Amino acid sequence: MPLRSDWSDRPCTIARGIDVLGDPWSLLILREAFGGATRFEGFSRHTGITDKALSGRLKTMTENGLLERVDGPSGARPRAEYRLTQAGADALPVLHAFALWAEQHAPNVELGRLGINCRACGARARSADTCRTCGRDLDVTNTRWTWAGSRDGEQVDLDSALDNLEDKQLASR
Amino acid sequence: MPLRSDWSDRPCTIARGIDVLGDPWSLLILREAFGGATRFEGFSRHTGITDKALSGRLKTMTENGLLERVDGPSGARPRAEYRLTQAGADALPVLHAFALWAEQHAPNVELGRLGINCRACGARARSADTCRTCGRDLDVTNTRWTWAGSRDGEQVDLDSALDNLEDKQLASR
Repeated sequence: MPLRSDWSDRPCTIARGIDVLGDPWSLLILREAFGGATRFEGFSRHTGITDKALSGRLKTMTENGLLERVDGPSGARPRAEYRLTQAGADALPVLHAFALWAEQHAPNVELGRLGINCRACGARARSADTCRTCGRDLDVTNTRWTWAGSRDGEQVDLDSALDNLEDKQLASR
Repeated sequence: MPLRSDWSDRPCTIARGIDVLGDPWSLLILREAFGGATRFEGFSRHTGITDKALSGRLKTMTENGLLERVDGPSGARPRAEYRLTQAGADALPVLHAFALWAEQHAPNVELGRLGINCRACGARARSADTCRTCGRDLDVTNTRWTWAGSRDGEQVDLDSALDNLEDKQLASR
């Protein structure tokens, strides 16, 4: 992590989690990965990150096992894809915890919000990882995000990120 | 936030949550506040933060409504205390989400870990905010942390942080 000292040897699981996941840009890149982004321009579109910062984060996140880099077919313009690993996918509750806190304490509805719903029962999420209505896990297989505001109506079932996990073979496009 | 641009106007609740809570040092300071720290040296003891960085974070976190500054009695050495606000206390699931992720993906048991338990039923937490055994909220009133490793055996019921919320009157010490 470039912004502070190494916390990977801290005697506390909170600090060790923050060490890998606690970089603000990395969290937004994960958000885009959950939304289905796999390529450089896909990660930059909604994050506002500079190319240099994005390159650095993709490298670090790959080294840390959150993303897997898959090189495209060789050719005039080889392009890498970055797929969520299981460790990356398991970070979903961290993003949800931030969103639920902001829903309550930074709720500026005019700016828009991210709706988080259980796909099984449709209930709005009130927990970072557990549907309090039907009890199911709110993981990538069972979560739907709905954007309001500038990305109004954009909706994504997070198993599109799961497809990334399962389909490790990069198709030629 | 000093490390990047202002995200308070982002059309996404994840980004707005990260804007206030997503600074690594602030998250560790919150951890200490949940553990009962209220004073400068209390926040620095287990975090390894420099005095300068701690001063800056306490100021920002107070401005952002996560902590409330309470000035001590005037005297030769007036000392401020910083108490968790309700908004700060509501950030507990963010810390838990980091810890549960690291428990699974950075589990170096030799370094130690933070045990998170439901006080009502004693079960080990498997969710950031909901006891999956008895269904109760894992909030400050119902969570026990147990440190293993360098802080071995140190145990804290997080309602000591709640006392901070309720007792706004600073006693002379």
